[in-house]
Amino acid sequence: MKTKEPFDMTNEEFTRYGDQILEWLAAYFDHPERFPVSGAILPGSIKKTLPSPAPSKPEPMAQIIKDFETLIVPGLTHWNHPSFMAYFAITSSRPAILGELLSAGINVNAMLWKASPAATELEEVVLGWLRRALDLPAGFQGTIHDTASTSSLVAMAAARESLQLQVREKGMTGRDLKPLTIYTSEHAHSSIERAAIVLGIGQENVRKIAVDHEFRMDAGELRNMLQRDKRDGYIPCCIVATVGTTSTTSVDPVPEIARLSKEFGVWLHVDGAYGGIAGLVPEMRWVLDGCAEADSIVMNPHKWLFVPIDCSVLYCRRPEILRRAFTLVPEYLRTEEEQVTNYMDYGIALGRRFRALKLWMVFRYFGLEGIVDRLRYHISLAQKFQSWVRSHPSFEVMAPAPFSVVCFRFLPQHWQKRSEVMMELINQLNLELLENVNRSGELFLSHTKLNGRVVLRLAIGNLRTAEEHVQKAWEVIRRNSESLEKRVGK
Amino acid sequence: MKTKEPFDMTNEEFTRYGDQILEWLAAYFDHPERFPVSGAILPGSIKKTLPSPAPSKPEPMAQIIKDFETLIVPGLTHWNHPSFMAYFAITSSRPAILGELLSAGINVNAMLWKASPAATELEEVVLGWLRRALDLPAGFQGTIHDTASTSSLVAMAAARESLQLQVREKGMTGRDLKPLTIYTSEHAHSSIERAAIVLGIGQENVRKIAVDHEFRMDAGELRNMLQRDKRDGYIPCCIVATVGTTSTTSVDPVPEIARLSKEFGVWLHVDGAYGGIAGLVPEMRWVLDGCAEADSIVMNPHKWLFVPIDCSVLYCRRPEILRRAFTLVPEYLRTEEEQVTNYMDYGIALGRRFRALKLWMVFRYFGLEGIVDRLRYHISLAQKFQSWVRSHPSFEVMAPAPFSVVCFRFLPQHWQKRSEVMMELINQLNLELLENVNRSGELFLSHTKLNGRVVLRLAIGNLRTAEEHVQKAWEVIRRNSESLEKRVGK
Repeated sequence: MKTKEPFDMTNEEFTRYGDQILEWLAAYFDHPERFPVSGAILPGSIKKTLPSPAPSKPEPMAQIIKDFETLIVPGLTHWNHPSFMAYFAITSSRPAILGELLSAGINVNAMLWKASPAATELEEVVLGWLRRALDLPAGFQGTIHDTASTSSLVAMAAARESLQLQVREKGMTGRDLKPLTIYTSEHAHSSIERAAIVLGIGQENVRKIAVDHEFRMDAGELRNMLQRDKRDGYIPCCIVATVGTTSTTSVDPVPEIARLSKEFGVWLHVDGAYGGIAGLVPEMRWVLDGCAEADSIVMNPHKWLFVPIDCSVLYCRRPEILRRAFTLVPEYLRTEEEQVTNYMDYGIALGRRFRALKLWMVFRYFGLEGIVDRLRYHISLAQKFQSWVRSHPSFEVMAPAPFSVVCFRFLPQHWQKRSEVMMELINQLNLELLENVNRSGELFLSHTKLNGRVVLRLAIGNLRTAEEHVQKAWEVIRRNSESLEKRVGK
Repeated sequence: MKTKEPFDMTNEEFTRYGDQILEWLAAYFDHPERFPVSGAILPGSIKKTLPSPAPSKPEPMAQIIKDFETLIVPGLTHWNHPSFMAYFAITSSRPAILGELLSAGINVNAMLWKASPAATELEEVVLGWLRRALDLPAGFQGTIHDTASTSSLVAMAAARESLQLQVREKGMTGRDLKPLTIYTSEHAHSSIERAAIVLGIGQENVRKIAVDHEFRMDAGELRNMLQRDKRDGYIPCCIVATVGTTSTTSVDPVPEIARLSKEFGVWLHVDGAYGGIAGLVPEMRWVLDGCAEADSIVMNPHKWLFVPIDCSVLYCRRPEILRRAFTLVPEYLRTEEEQVTNYMDYGIALGRRFRALKLWMVFRYFGLEGIVDRLRYHISLAQKFQSWVRSHPSFEVMAPAPFSVVCFRFLPQHWQKRSEVMMELINQLNLELLENVNRSGELFLSHTKLNGRVVLRLAIGNLRTAEEHVQKAWEVIRRNSESLEKRVGK
């Protein structure tokens, strides 16, 4: 009989290389400036350096780690870099990384309560902590999914189930069903439209409600659209409001929208993937106004609650409908226990990683007050950056910045009087500025378009970002703008 | 200005507690017998011990880790235990755990090539390794998803898109569309039916094709059903064949099914979540016969390729259709690069963890030959167990065991002549045996039902399971059966 040792790496190697990786990560977190935020990588250039096909013989771990350092790391965009300010800055924290290490090590599957009771119960406890800290009602049941795209899809499937059209049993084709419709703002995240595609609702049945001058859904327009659709025989299925839109972090008027949702009897889902977490900060609690009236709300701890990707939380006020939309229990998963949560009944994935552990680590290690301090600090950094942009004659702020994202653009003084007619040239100039800034490796930003205007986005949310990095970001942006300003003339 | 140190755990703490966790995991892997495979936990008992609400002040990491050990660990079912033989034994390996630690540490998002080029390119390379090692055609493009439930849903959405019915644009309601139908065996995984629900196809339009005496889809029945549905105006959307069904690990006749898929012009998806990986073993390559003709195939490295949950690979022969089913690129994610893969275009989730890294670690650290050795060993253990069951007068094997799962039941000798009329009593007895075995904490099994008969499943797939554990499993089962045998009389 073989012994079991040759079947896995030995513990001696495991702890030795584990230590080496911890040390490497520690150095990485301490001196991120060793790396450009984003390197100048040519498509396919990393692939070319990696051997193909797969090795047939075992290779030493030391070599694998060395290859990671020399072949993989130079091709990464460093989301951990304090000067990564693109998209929404996802951020990990050291206690949460240790939580993820533990999860990977114990490797339980939280599909059924019975399949690992503590994994299910810790998920219930931690999501209860977050719910209470956000002042959401006790009836909201939480589930962890991978990303907000999945959470919103799951919520919208529950909305469809709530219509009691027997879609679950009979499907949507071959029946005399009127078109189902979704209502969301033109600034909603693309995942809402994608969910409408997956659910068989279709892009043409997604009503993209106009926004006001601050990029918030126009509730009057929503009412008109709901009325028109009801009159025309459509079946309104779900309203999706956003707390913290992806482009500008605008906050839809959820209280008004919630009233319309009640009046018209339509499920209200709130996409708070980025902004919802800010509701932990007392002076930001307003961002969740009206959300207690929603049927479901998603927020992503992997965006702004200091856990590594992935971790998205969906709260649902009507879990029995959510369950009806998804549950299917084959014989091999039947268990006797009552009064337990089997999380596999509330979403798409059957197998579920033990994600609650990293969230638990963050809550306990930082404490709620510590979390609030960090969120508040990020918001204050963005407000400082905004004030610098405002006071510079060649830049303008392009949208309100309620959270930690600032939308701005470069507008050379020479062109300011003709900014409307020169919009396309100004757009080109801003894309050039973005490219130059990103190519410097000193800063990484992303962009969006608002009313036809290219806008740069600076997003703060990384635990390692301090004021010095925001100052440096502003310097890099200004420095790069100056040569462009010279080119277009004063 | 604040310094950045107070914003996260210090490196000193990170490496110190990281070391402590590595040492804890090492001891855990070495002496799993310290823990019952599955404890006798009462619903709610873990929750009760955990403080509520969330702590407002930071707590010391030492205390958090201690609470993990004393409050969480006793409530876990130990999927890592060498005597965990329920469901499909997912298994982690030490190199892959280190890979997961690195992924959590660098925390990049592999949504867009540009968002972290190396993460995308490593995923392409590693999935190319796996594809070649399985002898699947070069045209198969791979994507990593969380679980097979998601992979199959994504594949079935592509199948729907391949019908060119403009479901993406117009949806499925309010149109004169005939019902779409799905074809799969009555032994298919519940995720197929769940995907049909999500996609708006409906449970009633899932044709559950009968199986033969070895639980394989009856291709003749499939042909009849396709013909009947075509005649009756249904729109066949997708055939889902299974390589390694969940109950018995039976293998559907994919070559015949592939011919029907071509003849009727219907997308063929193969669910090889468990069994597909076995195709790496030369003498098991037959399990993938016909799969090169499929349109898509899923297999789960987190089941039997030694990476921690989650990691499911979907290969698709028609990636342009898959892309058409999902792509939506908002302005803020528009990039210039051509000739790159933006994985967010091929599935539901936008944000994507860097899962390729752990898979790369496993391929390199074990080498293909090492992986094959381990798979072969698991299969041989199951064959041994099967031979023991066969030679025992009070047990019977209930299904062929082509992989590493054995389906068997206890049939007291006294009842053997009346086994048909006493089916329910025998079922009860087997459930009692299962409960007794699992309650012992020495072994963890699960069950299924075949033709009305309760059947116990012993599944091997854990890197830490050696022959001694399978011997012990058999002893535990026999010992527990003996008292039951006495009770029913000789």
